[in-house]
Amino acid sequence: MESCPFTSIYQNYFPFWDHLSDSDRATLCRSSVSVQYPKGTTIHDGSICTGVIIPTSGCLRIYMLSEEGKEITLYRLYPGDICILSASCVLHSITFDVIVDAEEDSTCCVVGGCAFADISERVPEVKIFALETAVARFSDVMWIMQQILFMSMDKRLAIFLLDEAAKTGSDTVKLTHEQIARYMGSAREVVTRMLKYFSSEKIVEVTRKGVILLDKTRLRRLAV
Amino acid sequence: MESCPFTSIYQNYFPFWDHLSDSDRATLCRSSVSVQYPKGTTIHDGSICTGVIIPTSGCLRIYMLSEEGKEITLYRLYPGDICILSASCVLHSITFDVIVDAEEDSTCCVVGGCAFADISERVPEVKIFALETAVARFSDVMWIMQQILFMSMDKRLAIFLLDEAAKTGSDTVKLTHEQIARYMGSAREVVTRMLKYFSSEKIVEVTRKGVILLDKTRLRRLAV
Repeated sequence: MESCPFTSIYQNYFPFWDHLSDSDRATLCRSSVSVQYPKGTTIHDGSICTGVIIPTSGCLRIYMLSEEGKEITLYRLYPGDICILSASCVLHSITFDVIVDAEEDSTCCVVGGCAFADISERVPEVKIFALETAVARFSDVMWIMQQILFMSMDKRLAIFLLDEAAKTGSDTVKLTHEQIARYMGSAREVVTRMLKYFSSEKIVEVTRKGVILLDKTRLRRLAV
Repeated sequence: MESCPFTSIYQNYFPFWDHLSDSDRATLCRSSVSVQYPKGTTIHDGSICTGVIIPTSGCLRIYMLSEEGKEITLYRLYPGDICILSASCVLHSITFDVIVDAEEDSTCCVVGGCAFADISERVPEVKIFALETAVARFSDVMWIMQQILFMSMDKRLAIFLLDEAAKTGSDTVKLTHEQIARYMGSAREVVTRMLKYFSSEKIVEVTRKGVILLDKTRLRRLAV
């Protein structure tokens, strides 16, 4: 078998790798590329079967877009995760489109959709892996749906601010109201109003640099 | 092989039926029951692995429930469909709960979750079938999410009324505002307000018997 620069990655990411024939492994390698995406790049715009995207560094954001341009972030993927919804030709029962952006400078392996689909039709382990990856994302989406539809806005904003602070290790959330609203699948007006309320309650301070969390105890109480 | 009253049904519903060993088919039969559910019964409440539910008559409604008791209808299942989300033991990557009600008097075959799970671990065709059925529902849920989050309310109500009229073959939608709101994942107040607007525009007439569609042409225009 010819040498393949992706072997060590695919061994870690694909539980079926050792079950593949040499020829199938060679096909996957030949159909793979490693790409660097600067922050903000659209990696998959939903229109074609881009393929299976594996972030090896950075962070990808997967979201839905309405005809009017409204966005809802469904989930984010980090090194160790796999994006399968960008390979609609592999999963015929997926009839919706998502968009994938590089949220940070990201390096990804992209396995061509056709090659992956072809092998998944012949090797049940590959098919099962692809479907299980999609079903796990189904759970993520149900969670975000529950957040958006059922939870009250103050609770949601509190959870979002605490999550961001924990993720960045800073008590200043350096995002605009517009960005926060986008991430939460809400409207800027709603976020601004709620931040004003939090601010009047001395829970946060809204500055030009971002939202400073002043009282995390109360935020946590709101988030329960 | 012992005679199984479910054979003719399972031959139609399960594409893997002919690939199963006699012993696996007998296991599935022994683990199956046929149950009649009166309208309004909760068939699966999300807490245990009820199993794979196959409606052979009637209609099932699958929905999410918030802690505060708010409901969102995700989709409905009719004869010919299969409910796999009620078998969480088969799909380990499903981490959310849905509730299944009989929306009409319904007859269902219920295949015990453990038996189905056990066979699906050994027979890839069964696993693939279960996962593909779940992924198809993922597409349904994304659709409803798009409806709820992105579409304006007038459009959504117009689509709902036209759908109901088409489904029942009657221009009178015999549902309360509360029921319409529940099916649409909205609030009763919002539905009442929008119906009042439609009514003032002579698009519908709101009576005690239900909502009479007066001007379907305008409803269709709203629904575009």
